[in-house]
Amino acid sequence: MALGLPTTRFPGGEEQIRDSRYDVLFEPVRIGRFTTRNRFYQPPHCNGMGNLRPQAHAAMRGIKAEGGWAVVNTEHCSIHPTSDLMPEVLQSLWDEDDIPPLALMCDAVHAHGSLAGVQLAYAAYYNANKLSREIPMGPMGRPVDGTFPLHARAMDLADIRNLRRWWREAAERARRCGFDIVNVDANFSTIAFQFLSPRNQRADEYGGSLRNRARLLRELIEETRAGVQDACAVSVRLIVDELCGDVGLRAEEEGIEAISLLAELPDLWDIVIGTWAGDSPTARFAPENDHERFLAGIKQVTTRPVVGVGRFTSPDTMVSLVRRGILDMIGATRPSIADPFLPSKIEEGRLEDIRECIGCNICVSSHFMMTNLRCTQNPTIGEEWRRDWHPEILRPRDREETVLVVGAGPAGLECARVLAERGYDVMLAERSRELGGRLLHESRLPGMTTYLRVRDWRAGQIARLPNVAVFRESIMDRATILETGAAHVILATGSVWRRDGVSRLNGRPLSLGAIPVLTPDDIFAGAKISGRVMIYDEDHYYMGGLLAEQLARAGADVILVTPEAELSAFTANTLELQRIALRLDEAGVTGLTHHVLVGADSGGVELRHRHTSRPRTVAVDMLVLVTARQPVDELYRDLAGAVIDVVRIGDCLAPGAVFHAVHGGHRAGREFGAAEQEIPFRRERIDLARV
Amino acid sequence: MALGLPTTRFPGGEEQIRDSRYDVLFEPVRIGRFTTRNRFYQPPHCNGMGNLRPQAHAAMRGIKAEGGWAVVNTEHCSIHPTSDLMPEVLQSLWDEDDIPPLALMCDAVHAHGSLAGVQLAYAAYYNANKLSREIPMGPMGRPVDGTFPLHARAMDLADIRNLRRWWREAAERARRCGFDIVNVDANFSTIAFQFLSPRNQRADEYGGSLRNRARLLRELIEETRAGVQDACAVSVRLIVDELCGDVGLRAEEEGIEAISLLAELPDLWDIVIGTWAGDSPTARFAPENDHERFLAGIKQVTTRPVVGVGRFTSPDTMVSLVRRGILDMIGATRPSIADPFLPSKIEEGRLEDIRECIGCNICVSSHFMMTNLRCTQNPTIGEEWRRDWHPEILRPRDREETVLVVGAGPAGLECARVLAERGYDVMLAERSRELGGRLLHESRLPGMTTYLRVRDWRAGQIARLPNVAVFRESIMDRATILETGAAHVILATGSVWRRDGVSRLNGRPLSLGAIPVLTPDDIFAGAKISGRVMIYDEDHYYMGGLLAEQLARAGADVILVTPEAELSAFTANTLELQRIALRLDEAGVTGLTHHVLVGADSGGVELRHRHTSRPRTVAVDMLVLVTARQPVDELYRDLAGAVIDVVRIGDCLAPGAVFHAVHGGHRAGREFGAAEQEIPFRRERIDLARV
Repeated sequence: MALGLPTTRFPGGEEQIRDSRYDVLFEPVRIGRFTTRNRFYQPPHCNGMGNLRPQAHAAMRGIKAEGGWAVVNTEHCSIHPTSDLMPEVLQSLWDEDDIPPLALMCDAVHAHGSLAGVQLAYAAYYNANKLSREIPMGPMGRPVDGTFPLHARAMDLADIRNLRRWWREAAERARRCGFDIVNVDANFSTIAFQFLSPRNQRADEYGGSLRNRARLLRELIEETRAGVQDACAVSVRLIVDELCGDVGLRAEEEGIEAISLLAELPDLWDIVIGTWAGDSPTARFAPENDHERFLAGIKQVTTRPVVGVGRFTSPDTMVSLVRRGILDMIGATRPSIADPFLPSKIEEGRLEDIRECIGCNICVSSHFMMTNLRCTQNPTIGEEWRRDWHPEILRPRDREETVLVVGAGPAGLECARVLAERGYDVMLAERSRELGGRLLHESRLPGMTTYLRVRDWRAGQIARLPNVAVFRESIMDRATILETGAAHVILATGSVWRRDGVSRLNGRPLSLGAIPVLTPDDIFAGAKISGRVMIYDEDHYYMGGLLAEQLARAGADVILVTPEAELSAFTANTLELQRIALRLDEAGVTGLTHHVLVGADSGGVELRHRHTSRPRTVAVDMLVLVTARQPVDELYRDLAGAVIDVVRIGDCLAPGAVFHAVHGGHRAGREFGAAEQEIPFRRERIDLARV
Repeated sequence: MALGLPTTRFPGGEEQIRDSRYDVLFEPVRIGRFTTRNRFYQPPHCNGMGNLRPQAHAAMRGIKAEGGWAVVNTEHCSIHPTSDLMPEVLQSLWDEDDIPPLALMCDAVHAHGSLAGVQLAYAAYYNANKLSREIPMGPMGRPVDGTFPLHARAMDLADIRNLRRWWREAAERARRCGFDIVNVDANFSTIAFQFLSPRNQRADEYGGSLRNRARLLRELIEETRAGVQDACAVSVRLIVDELCGDVGLRAEEEGIEAISLLAELPDLWDIVIGTWAGDSPTARFAPENDHERFLAGIKQVTTRPVVGVGRFTSPDTMVSLVRRGILDMIGATRPSIADPFLPSKIEEGRLEDIRECIGCNICVSSHFMMTNLRCTQNPTIGEEWRRDWHPEILRPRDREETVLVVGAGPAGLECARVLAERGYDVMLAERSRELGGRLLHESRLPGMTTYLRVRDWRAGQIARLPNVAVFRESIMDRATILETGAAHVILATGSVWRRDGVSRLNGRPLSLGAIPVLTPDDIFAGAKISGRVMIYDEDHYYMGGLLAEQLARAGADVILVTPEAELSAFTANTLELQRIALRLDEAGVTGLTHHVLVGADSGGVELRHRHTSRPRTVAVDMLVLVTARQPVDELYRDLAGAVIDVVRIGDCLAPGAVFHAVHGGHRAGREFGAAEQEIPFRRERIDLARV
């Protein structure tokens, strides 16, 4: 019960030189009248800030340019109120007043020598025009996607003429914002793609043959050229394969052919696949470079530069794609969020400093939450403007202090790292031999290996900082903490899963009778599982589904029960929901939705239908509760009255996801030693003087 | 095939006098230092505008005051960033910069002699603080509601002290906005109520006995008094019954007792029940005045005025509640949206002019959609500022014109009414003997009677306008239309349900083999139903569930299939989802979610699991398709080339819900004769010059 021996620190901080094999990534690429500074391309991506938080948006894009991305794009930018995706937070170029917010972004990107691109878009079926209340339009009349009770109407030729004019006018406004590249979006949600798709069953010159279906896209490229008047390059973002068999476009049939039809019209081709979920799977379901088979053959039909994505974090993969003639520019969205300085770090030969994207899609969830972009690896994303957080710059300490951080999970590691980078002397005490806390267990679940990158990057950074002493196998109590002499203690001791049934819906402990009750912690500790097992999931993120998958594959007969209408319901926000359902089905897991746990006795587990209250009893041998967690905060209570400063972070303060822990640890490190602010971030405000 | 005989018009427009039995509704009520102009109270309500669209919000509240509501409240107004419900669109009083947007509202309300109230709120469990990223707090630690993977932490005494200070400061800011009444919100989502509820299991002086659990509410009332310094009255909005049995607060046990404990502390009691869904059921599930049994006894324990709600549209019900000593003020949210001039119309004896709320909760859906408030009966709500639409004022015609409106469903009736009010000569041609279009059929479905009010109000208004000629039983074609000599034709000919299987998910007609296929239109036309019936619902609003209920009650064996995860999935937005599930269960309907219709042959209906693609065949005798609709727009095509102006509105342009039709008809009537605007509404903009 005392501090163990400090582990050896690696030397660090020396100047490093880039391996020449990465030089090819820093070659210029010609895009129309522009030449890029390198091959790194930040494709359009949503961010939860958009035109609702334009200053925050501009600052985030500016940081990407500062970090070395040669081209930095906006997200979906609607050209007209008849294409209104609100309340989703996106961009618009409907009129003159939309220019200044986007000009802010152009200035921020140009300040670092990069090119700014805008994704001009007109939605079809995907938009219900909830704000504008205009009637949506599409190639054919049909209800809009989702459940909103409204149909889109079929466009006639006058509508198409209007659309072309709106598009040209929006391109002209884009030029006046200062954009260098104007993108014609033919992504899954757009009119250009809905015309191109074989789903388009029109009988006129805009339907039928591929040439006819591509007519609108061709016209929109032409209108863009007319609108930008040679001041901007023109790119196309196109789905080359819908990933839905012969109902939709297939790369090997019409996908590549569509590109060859329009081959030299744009100045750059930006290639995507499927819907957003198809294009951006999590690491649990797809490895890096998962798009390559759809990209092959594109450069054979166009001389224009081609950009594609694939959650690229390995510079060797990037080099290989360029060398093999698959891509000219490396598109990377999620990796650019996890580390906006990825290009600079490769350029400077600092590969070990790259915060590798873990492919968790928490960034995507920000869009559905309609709040500032967030990231498990990079807690500063979305905070650039409102908190003045720069991903690579920390305010140095004001005065010498020693801080003891207890617990080396995601929160403790990040907090210790930030404090040490700021110059504080940090003692990091960890109960186990291995650093990582919950990441150690969770990364061993099926497909979750990348989560260990959260530990690895922080442990690597800490190892090179001379002012952090890491004490492993150090179980701390009040006495040992006071013995260290540290005036500041930060508790990052995590949480444990509850075994009493208390959850979101059950406010009080349940009577769980004679059936053995386990928690995820028991399973991590090696509990023997056999027979028929019920996993009751009120967590709704990955844990319930992952344990079900793992136990079923190990031979158990698993029933996964949840009060929600979907299994692993929160994962709708990370684009994983459908894949999880499929995987659980393949693993033989029985799913039961809409049921709340009521109790258990020798007869079985008692459930109640969430809507109808109809009871249901299920006989099982074991019950695994994935319900709620309890902070491990005994130390906090034990230290009450001690004349030291004690702070809790991460799960020890409030159990959350890993991204919460990293953000909380980062914030505690940033704000240490600073005066407390009542509202520690700036907000954007509506201009009441206008109109 | 010609115009039938015009029906008799009623005389109208004469000056009317109020019946003296309603005089009691126009008596003043004392609220602290203020005296109200009458007994009409607009309780706090969400509106999708909030601090995101403050000018639109202020204008909407101002119209309420103009229409005679003596007290006009805001919606939920957060007092601190640790209580952040974003992305829900609400109000905040976190700092000085939040004052001007709310001062706008106070000015708008005061301009008409009414009192402005603000609903100060601090959420518990309901908030995930997605924007602020602060850790949520509650009486106890537990996950936040919904599926977001974050726990709220238990408040300690220092947290409670902080909360009290934040509350006092927010009350002080409310005073400086110009509010007259500051409300302490103890609604279902608030910290004050979560402490009061028996769910609160704290062991300290804020838990245990009712007195202890009411301590925080008492303190927040006191802090409000301290913050407003006698400048404002103080009200409390309290749940008197949680509607969930002994797990929560019950009126007859602790609900009334809680009020008696704090009886004279506030200047007014505003009483609600349950969650939002419990408090605001649709007309399908509850009649007017559904709260009365929970309100009885409150006035016996306090001398302060009591306000309650119950979707009141009948002045006789209102009078009765006052006379019988149940309520002092008539709270009405949905009726104040359907008709902001409800008080004035009662006052002026114009009862037949009241647009009665139909209790459909489309207003509620605006909150979940995060867009401007909307209403089936009142298309101008939420449009006051951005389109300059006043519910009672229409711009007179610029010149004499005759307009032919074809179709007297919701769109046609509303358009004809608006055009006639503006002074145009209107011919309204309806194929049937009865006016109302789809409303006639749909209002006969279980619980849908109130939908006929959409027809009745418009038919009543039209009947008193001398310049509308209504032609019933008039089937129009190109020739008869041209014969009328009208230079302007508005087609409101509605839509029919598709019978080919084309839907959101099926782009092409399905092979539906040997099984009889029906549509809702067939059922309305009296089709004989028997045996095992599958209703396939891709509409997701009320139709599929209502037909299932009706057919099951008539003896059919009904299976209701939908690709969504819930039956009647859109009704989550109208707070009906759970009640529909319960009612279908009671009626013996089998529900099957997550399944897409693939086809049908003699073996049965083939389905496919939406996530796993697993096939499933269900043997049935009949298949009812509630999938998508086709506009009835042959006339539009037939009139091509005719030298007259032809416009489609409502379902004839794009099938939607009734509120879409009414809004579309209203807009066509408003904009008739005006120059077309590219963007026909103002938007609020972010101030880029600040910070």
